[in-house]
Order: sequence, then C-alpha cells, then structure tokens
Amino acid sequence: MKDLIEKYFDKLWSINRSLTGNGNRETLKILSDLVDLNISEIHSGTHCFDWTVPPEWNVREAWIKDMKGNTIVDFGKNNLHVLGYSEMFHGKLNLEILKEHLYSLPEQPDVIPYLTSYYKPRWGFCISDNLLKTLKDETYEVYIDSELNPNGSMTIGEAILKGETDEEILLSTYICHPSMANNELSGPLVTAFIYNELKKTNHRRYTYRLLFLPETIGSICYLSMHGSQLKEKLAAGYVLTCIGDSGKFTYKKSRRGNSLADRAAELVLNQTEKDFILEDFFPTGSDERQYCSPGFNLPVGSLMRTRYGKYKEYHTSADNKKFISFEAMEKSVQKYLEIIHLIENNFVYENKLPFCEPQLGKRDLYPTLGSQKDTTDYVNAMMWILNLADGSNDMIEIAKRSKIHFDTLIRAAEKLSEKGLIQVKLI
Amino acid sequence: MKDLIEKYFDKLWSINRSLTGNGNRETLKILSDLVDLNISEIHSGTHCFDWTVPPEWNVREAWIKDMKGNTIVDFGKNNLHVLGYSEMFHGKLNLEILKEHLYSLPEQPDVIPYLTSYYKPRWGFCISDNLLKTLKDETYEVYIDSELNPNGSMTIGEAILKGETDEEILLSTYICHPSMANNELSGPLVTAFIYNELKKTNHRRYTYRLLFLPETIGSICYLSMHGSQLKEKLAAGYVLTCIGDSGKFTYKKSRRGNSLADRAAELVLNQTEKDFILEDFFPTGSDERQYCSPGFNLPVGSLMRTRYGKYKEYHTSADNKKFISFEAMEKSVQKYLEIIHLIENNFVYENKLPFCEPQLGKRDLYPTLGSQKDTTDYVNAMMWILNLADGSNDMIEIAKRSKIHFDTLIRAAEKLSEKGLIQVKLI
Amino acid sequence: MKDLIEKYFDKLWSINRSLTGNGNRETLKILSDLVDLNISEIHSGTHCFDWTVPPEWNVREAWIKDMKGNTIVDFGKNNLHVLGYSEMFHGKLNLEILKEHLYSLPEQPDVIPYLTSYYKPRWGFCISDNLLKTLKDETYEVYIDSELNPNGSMTIGEAILKGETDEEILLSTYICHPSMANNELSGPLVTAFIYNELKKTNHRRYTYRLLFLPETIGSICYLSMHGSQLKEKLAAGYVLTCIGDSGKFTYKKSRRGNSLADRAAELVLNQTEKDFILEDFFPTGSDERQYCSPGFNLPVGSLMRTRYGKYKEYHTSADNKKFISFEAMEKSVQKYLEIIHLIENNFVYENKLPFCEPQLGKRDLYPTLGSQKDTTDYVNAMMWILNLADGSNDMIEIAKRSKIHFDTLIRAAEKLSEKGLIQVKLI
Repeated sequence: MKDLIEKYFDKLWSINRSLTGNGNRETLKILSDLVDLNISEIHSGTHCFDWTVPPEWNVREAWIKDMKGNTIVDFGKNNLHVLGYSEMFHGKLNLEILKEHLYSLPEQPDVIPYLTSYYKPRWGFCISDNLLKTLKDETYEVYIDSELNPNGSMTIGEAILKGETDEEILLSTYICHPSMANNELSGPLVTAFIYNELKKTNHRRYTYRLLFLPETIGSICYLSMHGSQLKEKLAAGYVLTCIGDSGKFTYKKSRRGNSLADRAAELVLNQTEKDFILEDFFPTGSDERQYCSPGFNLPVGSLMRTRYGKYKEYHTSADNKKFISFEAMEKSVQKYLEIIHLIENNFVYENKLPFCEPQLGKRDLYPTLGSQKDTTDYVNAMMWILNLADGSNDMIEIAKRSKIHFDTLIRAAEKLSEKGLIQVKLI
Repeated sequence: MKDLIEKYFDKLWSINRSLTGNGNRETLKILSDLVDLNISEIHSGTHCFDWTVPPEWNVREAWIKDMKGNTIVDFGKNNLHVLGYSEMFHGKLNLEILKEHLYSLPEQPDVIPYLTSYYKPRWGFCISDNLLKTLKDETYEVYIDSELNPNGSMTIGEAILKGETDEEILLSTYICHPSMANNELSGPLVTAFIYNELKKTNHRRYTYRLLFLPETIGSICYLSMHGSQLKEKLAAGYVLTCIGDSGKFTYKKSRRGNSLADRAAELVLNQTEKDFILEDFFPTGSDERQYCSPGFNLPVGSLMRTRYGKYKEYHTSADNKKFISFEAMEKSVQKYLEIIHLIENNFVYENKLPFCEPQLGKRDLYPTLGSQKDTTDYVNAMMWILNLADGSNDMIEIAKRSKIHFDTLIRAAEKLSEKGLIQVKLI
Repeated sequence: MKDLIEKYFDKLWSINRSLTGNGNRETLKILSDLVDLNISEIHSGTHCFDWTVPPEWNVREAWIKDMKGNTIVDFGKNNLHVLGYSEMFHGKLNLEILKEHLYSLPEQPDVIPYLTSYYKPRWGFCISDNLLKTLKDETYEVYIDSELNPNGSMTIGEAILKGETDEEILLSTYICHPSMANNELSGPLVTAFIYNELKKTNHRRYTYRLLFLPETIGSICYLSMHGSQLKEKLAAGYVLTCIGDSGKFTYKKSRRGNSLADRAAELVLNQTEKDFILEDFFPTGSDERQYCSPGFNLPVGSLMRTRYGKYKEYHTSADNKKFISFEAMEKSVQKYLEIIHLIENNFVYENKLPFCEPQLGKRDLYPTLGSQKDTTDYVNAMMWILNLADGSNDMIEIAKRSKIHFDTLIRAAEKLSEKGLIQVKLI
C-alpha cells in the first residue's frame, strides 16, 4: 500500500490548493481514482450560518524580479510563495514598500512560511528570511496574475459507503493547503486508502461518510446542509490531519470526552501502542472545532500523529516529502481500520444464562482437565464477557476492565454467541 | 486459638476430599465439633441451573507397581497422586502408554501437581517430574479401585446464627480438595473459628450464614435453592480461601466494587494493616464467580492472604503444613471479626441538634479548659460524627473522611447516642 | 495600605478581648473608622440553639506578688496572663496551692500560653514555664479584680454592602482573643480593609455581609437569628482567620467541598499562586464549624495563611507583631478581592450562534492574516468561551478546562458579550 500512497502523493504535491479554485477540483479528480467521490460546487456568496463562501481564487502566474530582470521569487517554483488569496497586482516598487508585502520567518530563516488572507483584501509574497536579507535597496517589479471571482464556487467531495444501518461513522479531512505534506496531503491520502479498504468488506454495520473539504468554511457549509442529519445519526467521527509523519499517535478527544469515538480510539491506542499522546478537547485546531461547536457537539475526535503546532516544520515549506513517511501513513490507515473494526463489533451483549456460570465444559469451551494453574486468555475472555454481559456494558467497557485485547474479546463473543450463551441487546 | 486450629488441621489433613464422597462427609463431621452444622445431601443427577450434580466418587486404593512388584506410586501415601474423579482401572501397560495417564509439572520437578477431570471420564496419576524421569521402559501394573456412583450424592454443610434482623452476612468456604493447606483447609478452619467466636456474642444485628461447599458445583446448587433469598437479604458476604499463609492480606472486591462488603473490608485493611493488596473483581477465582454472576450480583468479595495463582506452591503437594502459619490463621480470624464488628456498627446516624454544634461541654463531653492547642482523637471523633450525621453517611464513610480509626468512632457514636445527640436513622 | 493596617493593628493590640466585655466594644469602635458597622448587644442568658450567652466578663486588675511585695505577674503588662473568664479572687496562698491555678507550656518554656474557662467557674494565671520554675516555696498574694455580670451582654458587629441582587457573599471573622496577632487581629483587619475596597466599587452584583463576632457563641447566636436567611441567600462565604503571617495560603474547603466559595478560591489560588495548601473540610477549627453544621451546610470555606494549630506560636504570647507581616496582610486583602472579582464575574453564558464558530474576523476579533503558527491567549479565550457557552458551564469551569487565567477570560467574555455573540443565561 505504501508505494501506492507515494504515487498519489507525488501526483497531488505541486497542485495549488486553497479554499476554492481549480487546484481543489484537480485534487478531487485525482482522489476519485481511489474514492467514489460525489463532487459538488457551492457558489461564492452562499451563506452558511455566520459565514459566506468567498470568491473563487485562481493564480496563473506570480513573481518578483530585480532591476536586472532576474526572477527572485517565483510561484511556479513553490506555490507557498504567494500569500493565500492574494489580489492581482502589477507594479514597480522600491524595497521599503515591497517589504510591507513580504512575509518571512526570522526564527527559521531557511524556510518559506505559509500565510493566507482569506477575508481581508491583500497581496503578498512569502519568502525565506535568508532571501529577504539578501534583497538590495533597488526597484523591483512585482506581478501577481490572480483572480478573485465572486461568481465562482467552492468545491467539496463526499463519499458514502452504505452499511446495514443508517447510523454513521464520519471521516473528515481537508483539501485547502498548497504544497505541504503532513498538514495537508497526509489527511486526504489516509482517508482515501481507508475508503479503499472499507469498500472491500462485504459486511458493514455502520454507514460511512467521508468528507474532503476546505478547512473551516468547508465543514461549516457542510454542516449548514447536513448538520441535523449528522446530529441524529452520527455514532462516531474523526478528523484526519497530520497523520503522515513517523511520530507517535496523538488522539484529541471530542468535546464530549467520552463519546464512542473517544472510547474506541483510546482503547485501541492503549492496547496496541507502547506510547501515544491523549489530549482533551480544545476549541482551536481543525474541523472538529465546527463538529464540536456547542450547537452540534458531535462525537468527533481526531487521531493524528505529530499534531499541528507541535513540530517546527508546520505551516512552512519544510513540511514536505522528507518530513513524512509512507510506511507511517500505511500504519495510520491500519490504525484507523483497527478502530473501525472495534466500533463495528462493539456490541452490548446479554448473558442468556445469567444465574451462576453456564457450564462451558459441556460446550467444548473449557478444558476438561481441571485445576490447571493458568487460565488461558481465551477462557478468561469468555468469563469476562459472560460476567459483564448484563446489558449495560459494551465491548469497550469489557476490554477496559478485563485488560484483554479487544480482538480476543471479539472472537470470544462470537463463539459465545454461536453457542447461544449471549445475544446482542437490541436497543 | 492457634493450637486448636493446628489440632483440627491435623485431623483434616489426610482426608481425600473432592466434589463428592465420604471424605467430604468425614470433613464436615469433624468441623461439627466447632460449628453447629446442618449437613445435607444432594442427589447425583440433580439439575442446578446449567449444571448437574456429578456421580459420587470414592477411592479405596490406587497404586502403580513396577515389574519387580515395587510400589512406585501410592494413593495411600499422598491422595494427590490420583487424578480427581479417576475411573476404576486395572491393567498392565508399557511406559509409553502409561505416560498418557501421568501428569507432572516439569517447571517444579519435585512436587506432585493437583489435577482433576470432573466432567470427562479419564483415569490418571499425578507424580513429581523427578519420579517421572526415573521410570524405565518396562511394564507397569496399575490399579485404581475407585467408584463413580450415579446414585450417590454431594454433601454440603450450612450453619445459621440468628441475629436481630433477617439481613444476612454470608461466609462461604469450600471443601473439595484433597491434602492441601492454604488452598483448602485454611478456608474451612478460619470459617469455623469465626463461627466459634461469633457464637459467644450475645447481641448480633445481622444473621450469619456460613457455608461449607464443594467449589463451583456446590455454590451453584446452593444458589439454585437459596439464591433469591440471598438476593433479597444479603447485606455483605465473603468467600474464604487461601487465608492461612503468612503473606499480607489480599482483598478481591465484589463485582459491584463498592458494596458494603467491599467498603468494610477496605476500611479495616486501610486502618489496621501497613500493607495489603486490593484487587478489583475478576470473573475467575473461587465461588465469588457464582455469587457475583450477573443474575445475582451479590455483595460478595473475598479476603485472602496470598491469593490462588500467586504462589508457586498453589495446586501442588507443596501447599502443605510448612507453607502455612497457625498464627497467621488466628490473625485471619481476628481480621474477619474486625470487619464484622465494623459492619455490625455501621449505622447511619442523624444529628438531633443539626443547627450549629451542640454544646458538648455541658454534657461532660468536652474539656472545660478551652483553647488548648490540640484536640483529642475522641473529641475529634465526636465532632466528625455530629457534622456528618445528616442521614446520608454511614460510619464507614465518616471513618474514610475523618481518617479516624473506626473503633474510636464507634465508641464516640455510642456515647453521643447515650447523650441523646444522635440517633440511628431508620430506613 | 500596609501602613494603615499597621496603624490599626497598634491601636487594637493591647485591648483585652474575650467572648464579651468592654474590650470587644472598644475593638468594634476602632474598626468603625474603616467599616460602617452596625453594633448590637445580645443579653447574657439569651438562648441560641443549644447554647446560652455567658455573663459579661471584665477585668480591671490582676496580679501575683511575692512575699516582698514584688509583682511577679501582671495583667497590666500582658493580658494573656489571666485565664480567660477567671472569677474574682483575692488571697494569700503557698506555692503548692497557687500552682493549681498556674498554666504554663513546658515544651515552649519562654512563652505565655493562652487559655480560657468560659463555661466552668475557675480562676487562674497563664505564665511562661521559665517563670514558673523560678518560683520559690513561699507565700504569694493573688488578686484578680474581675466581674462576671449575668446582666451584661455580648457585643457583635455587622456591616452590609448592598449589591444589585440580594444573593449574598459572607465574610466572617472573630473578635474574642486578647493580645494575639495572627490568630486574632489579622482576621478583623483584613476583613475591614476588604470592606474598605469593596465600598469604593460602584457596581456590585452581590450583597456583602461582614461579621465581626466572638468565635463559636457569636456565630451560633448570629445563625440563630439570621440562619434561615443565609440558607436561602448565601452564594459563598469565607471565615477570615490566621491571614496575617507571611506563610503560603491555605484554603480549607466548605463541607460541601465544591461550593462556589470552594471553586472560586481554588481557581484563584491555582492560577495565581505557585504554592498553596488545599484542605478538605474538617469539623474542628473556627466558625465554619457552625456555618457548615449539617442543618445549615452553608457554602462557607476559609482562606488562611498558616492555619491555626500549624505554627508553634499559635495560642501563645509569641503570636505577636513580630510573627506577622503587614505586607502579607495587604496581599491577603488583594487575594480575597481577586476571589470576589471572580465570583462577581462568574456568569454562565450562552452562545447565541452555537452552530459552528461565529466568524470572529468580520467583527475585528480575529487576526486577518491567517495560518499563523500561534494563537494568542486572547483569541484562545474567546474560542473556549464560545465553545463551552452552552448554558451549563460557568466561567470557573471554563477557566479550569482551558487553563487560561480567569481575568483574560472575563475580559474576553465582556468583549464577546458586547459584540452580541454570547449572553448571560438567566436562571
């Protein structure tokens, strides 16, 4: 899988993505190889709760040239160079005036920072601080051939994988950053490959909703259209971002703190990872901000690796292919699939013979040679399930109390269910 | 007391106990010296929930002889040698075939392991691995003169000590292992001596029910007959096992985790023992498995010393008189009596003068010389009781919050009650 | 402020205070410079719940002279010398008999202990153990010119600062110890200076009730008169004692443990002090014993510095001006004012745009240059408030979860409220 992830990474890398624009359309088109995407357009100017979809932004060309005509900064070489949502501009400026439009990061002098000005008209270039320092006091020619089209639209992608029930699992990721790796492409790539795996299963209890949206305005618009349905049907959801580097996993809980999304992710990490970071919800970050706004308060957390704001390459040109690992990304896909496997099997069982233990031996579920010194994990798992299957504990709760691996428990529950000793509680 | 415990230990040691059989009857007869036992028989074949009482098993003689007629293994020397519930067998076998019927413990080569085959017909011998290794490739004569009588019965013993109310305290122990000390005789012996002490008290708030049963099938049968009564009347209960070695105390909580049984045992250990082990409930172990099955969910925990499975002598011939301590067993009796003392006095009081403090000085409950630098424990105890006696806190809760020894609190409550300042809340 | 505190300390120091008497009247008169006190008298013999107001005690003169007429002990030099509530006495005694009336503290031989005998008739002198040891076996003349007047009264002071609502904040302190500094004067002084500051504010949500009472009998009498009103209207209260030394703060929680008083004090200490002590409620101590008796169970804690019983100078002549710090006392006033500031602003807000985030940028509340690496504290504060403003979290809860300083949150909430994004929830 990891080679295929890399192939798609390379295809998507150099595209200029933003809240809107042709780069987003191209990105979704490429992802359509992997995901059965339903792509739709939302008109600029559309009202979504307190927000308005911005004009569509496209850049054709942008550069700064010195007096000799040498191109010093070129959008064609790195799309981070243009301040996001820059207005069109053409003119000659001296260094002093030009500097008012240049953004650099003095504490990391060799990287290009990533900056935007979505909601206030501006033009600007982002450059390394090293380059800034070499600029002489002369006249520069500046050209930004961009368009902010109020009759354009914002592009979003959505995929639905139907399950047995209309209760839903949400996977939401964003497509709105230009050439960055962990804090952009890891999200849509991991999401797409999860879809690819899920599609292969022929039995799904839950319906899966996968969203590829520009951050903030995208999820806000989506919620303005589908929020009440999600409020009714969403069992668990995750925002996928910063999931491609080789750092340990970070799970940021939903606002509820103990939702199914949180309990499943936490258990899987506890039982399968030596080390990971668990964070309580906080209202800055990615689209969980919208899903977990107080009016929605959806069960949506975020499983990441090294979180936004926690690595120095974040929001710079150094968040590139070198910073990430395709092996780690494949493992991220697997980790999400483990969580989904747990959620799919997280039944509440009822013991059909709740008075004293059922005799497991006569059902070939117990060793006939008694009084051995150790109980096997598998027998242990059956005993725990039978004891806690009183209609109030789900499998996550039983795994937490028994400290038995959730997969051993799931297999034991299937066996007990087959033998007629437990049954799924209907709610 | 400890010498008397030892005397009874010696009387009971060599008897061959199992789920059923004459050894159990003999054991209960001896214990009748100490406990007013009501002994009853339950027919083999009786259905108890999902289980059936097995045939009655008795062994007259069992040995293995070599070609020269030397007795190599003899049930008469150690009753662990015969696999529990072995069928009758007589025959000559070569070593290879014989070995299919020999059980040893390679990781502890000098001990005889304890094994049973209650519910699958088998015959076998348990021997030390050292002995196994000395066996030559020759022909052996094997003889097991045992009986599995489908018209027999299972023997159980019960004692009731009536109290003022019909709310009950349960002490349950088992009689079903052959010659083992901590994991067999410590239980019935400590239980019997607790009974002996309780009988001497002339005032008991609770009714005490003491059970001497074969493990698992015994408690299951008992619950099938008396379970609904226990569900209605049981205030607290304990399973007594592995309570005779000199290790520190281990308390395994009931499934409820905060039942009266748990709260009382935990407080007594906290306030009287420097070091002890507190374990959450788990569904393997002894008869608390049945008492705490989800249909019953009784408030039954287990105060032990070194728990089953936690010492290498467990379920071997090394769990013998050397492994245990009669002094420790006497202290185990005392510890249970302390817990019972606390439960007997664990009233919920109501302060009859709840607005501000009552004036203790005029009732000779407070020093008349004021402003001294320290408050005595006893005055402290009264202040805590008066403050928390709002009808919602029992004495265990007050002891936990005040960190005052429960006995000081009990005496202070009696004094305050005498002076008319508090009264027991009627429920 | 600290010089003024010292000035009043010096004025109050040498006055002989007790449960009753002219010293208490003089003390309240001096405090009237700072506080608009309503001073009232409660007749000796008045019944208050289980207690009776004692006779009024006044001492004119008291001394012990040796055979040569030298004054060895003189009430005029230190009013701790006379056992509190000593009866009148005049006589000549030999050393043996005299010693029955002398109280010293052998473990701190150079200090005079503080002792009382309010409710049992006695006479006595408190002296240093060093002095006691120098006394020769001769005849002494003893004179105590005191009066215990059954027709006298107990004097109490009260001040009310009206606020917008009749919900109340209580500050209660005591005036009943003779010349002691931390465990007497720090309480009334800090309380008086808090009043002085509160009076200057022109907006108060809560009504403030300040009490200057003799300990125990004073608060009991006050509660017998006003307890039901406090039960209905009290939002939070504090007992002020031992608040004048330079030790770290100690907060003793109310009996409820999580009342507004507790939550506010704990948060302020957590966010503003490097080190402090947090204690659960215990039913010995000062007047919180009465406020937190089970019938009242008022939300009254106590913010102290070094608590009574925790410093060796406590209840001795060494609890004097040297032991305390006027700078610390000023800071104590400020700390109480911070707590009050928090309580005054501890609203429960409701987000008026609870579906997704409101767009802060268009309201000039958010930086227009996006994707910067850090979020400022102030933006963070707004995000937290908007996210948790669902009508169930007050500002204390938001501060605890966000770990943002309560004052930053209060300012952010005011701004959001101004912009119409949140509103105070009416209850």
